Amino acid sequence: MTATARYSLMIHGGAGALDNVKDQKTAVRYLDSVQRILEHGREVLELGGSALQAAEQCASLLEDDPIFNAGCGSVLNEDGHVEMDAAIMDGRTLGAGAVAAIDGIANPVQLARLVMTESEHVMLIADGAMRFADHCGVERVPASYFYTEDRIAQLKEARLRHKMMLDHESPEDCVCEDQKYGTIGAVAYDMEGNLAAATSTGGIVNKRQGRVGDSPIVGAGVYADNETCAVSTTGYGEEFMRTVIAKTISDFIYMKELDAEEATRAGIDYLRRKVNGRGGMIVIDNQGRCASGMTTKKMIHGWIEHGGEAVVRF
Amino acid sequence: MTATARYSLMIHGGAGALDNVKDQKTAVRYLDSVQRILEHGREVLELGGSALQAAEQCASLLEDDPIFNAGCGSVLNEDGHVEMDAAIMDGRTLGAGAVAAIDGIANPVQLARLVMTESEHVMLIADGAMRFADHCGVERVPASYFYTEDRIAQLKEARLRHKMMLDHESPEDCVCEDQKYGTIGAVAYDMEGNLAAATSTGGIVNKRQGRVGDSPIVGAGVYADNETCAVSTTGYGEEFMRTVIAKTISDFIYMKELDAEEATRAGIDYLRRKVNGRGGMIVIDNQGRCASGMTTKKMIHGWIEHGGEAVVRF
Repeated sequence: MTATARYSLMIHGGAGALDNVKDQKTAVRYLDSVQRILEHGREVLELGGSALQAAEQCASLLEDDPIFNAGCGSVLNEDGHVEMDAAIMDGRTLGAGAVAAIDGIANPVQLARLVMTESEHVMLIADGAMRFADHCGVERVPASYFYTEDRIAQLKEARLRHKMMLDHESPEDCVCEDQKYGTIGAVAYDMEGNLAAATSTGGIVNKRQGRVGDSPIVGAGVYADNETCAVSTTGYGEEFMRTVIAKTISDFIYMKELDAEEATRAGIDYLRRKVNGRGGMIVIDNQGRCASGMTTKKMIHGWIEHGGEAVVRF
Repeated sequence: MTATARYSLMIHGGAGALDNVKDQKTAVRYLDSVQRILEHGREVLELGGSALQAAEQCASLLEDDPIFNAGCGSVLNEDGHVEMDAAIMDGRTLGAGAVAAIDGIANPVQLARLVMTESEHVMLIADGAMRFADHCGVERVPASYFYTEDRIAQLKEARLRHKMMLDHESPEDCVCEDQKYGTIGAVAYDMEGNLAAATSTGGIVNKRQGRVGDSPIVGAGVYADNETCAVSTTGYGEEFMRTVIAKTISDFIYMKELDAEEATRAGIDYLRRKVNGRGGMIVIDNQGRCASGMTTKKMIHGWIEHGGEAVVRF
């Protein structure tokens, strides 16, 4: 790291997911993964990579780790299928790409980036998104890439309980502590002062077919604007959609001239007051300052501020 | 109308759609429809109906008129199919419902309302949304309800031109003047001071399968919050998604204490400066004041402010 390196990076692996983890080994497993992925992102940014590259690569690595509910670790819907959502946004141009209800793709965040760069659209969904993936030559992975005994047991459990197991259940609702849930996300600030954000998820266990949460919604699950900040959120998606919370935080910076810390606090207050929202977010502002906030007990996350030491928390 | 009636109502039938209409008869046809639907909304509100009811009913009537690109007048996608998007939002609770990429439903805005009231989700898409429609007993309409000779000719034309015909083409790009395009929307303020908004569209002629625009995105195509305003937008969807323009206007009121007129002007400036966005919006604020703005030459719209005379413009 040189003296001029002012890059910053934050990633998260979901809010609430560790609320009920008492087992130290599992906690360490999450934290190690976050640490490792942060260091990978640092390399990208130190070598002069863009915020967009860093956000995409970190999100891809989170998708590749089965402990997180995104990519290969995605949960199953009511039909026992994977339906993944992802979005990415480039703060330089407000360019954005999103996919929803897709299956058979190892890295939804990379398909979202292709939607941004290779199509005239922002959002492609379901069969149309898959057709676009084929058009772009994106490799399909077999169903076995997603289906594990754990995941099938988890769905069976949710069905038995005749309700959805939300990302962020309170302990009293929670039957098994090692459920896979949560969203993943990454926000980055590169050495040229550009911002980018990415979010990806498998959604909610036993969710209705075709349910789209906040993750692929520009303004709810993700936002990036070089003038303000980059945001990735995780939580009870519907509450984040109804408050359009990522754009709200960006607007607190744009309209009230707050910094990352103040805007995040204002966003959390807004979320709580408006819809009693459950979840959290990571935010880097236009000066590379890092902030995080949550209304849940925990959020697995970590950051590197202005090229400093990596910090990992939950 | 009584002296205490302070209800307001605005509807639109798309920005840009009439830019190239030179034929007086067609223009009158649009304006008559807007006038008729405004008067229907007035009845709903005068009888003590909620803003939500007025917005839903006006949006449904706009969907039922084939001159607008929504409901029965929806354009065809690249496969020659209808794929409709709609959303509705209740300013009392920030409750919201949205559907995307649906077919065979006469009134997508009513299905969006069912998503809001009868599901635990905000957004359902494609096959999942259709399954939910069946679950709710929503009647299907046959394909012939949507396919007209006009619509098929229009798609053929678009294919010939090897490009999409956007909602808002500039005259030099525009081959035929009587294309069906545009979005529809309604925003209402009831006698109890509640706000609601609804937006519905058939999208863009010859669009990619699975393309979702701004109309069903909470914060982009629609927003309603009793504390601030109700907004419905119409325009080049991707630009409205990237700026999350409906929420931005709401935030101008929330964070800068602007009124409808000022917030709309600020929103138009923001849209222009950030992405050179093409389109417009209708806005009613928390005092029932009406405002509209557009960056296109025209937007078919009309309003009743504080129970006054209906005004229709394009």
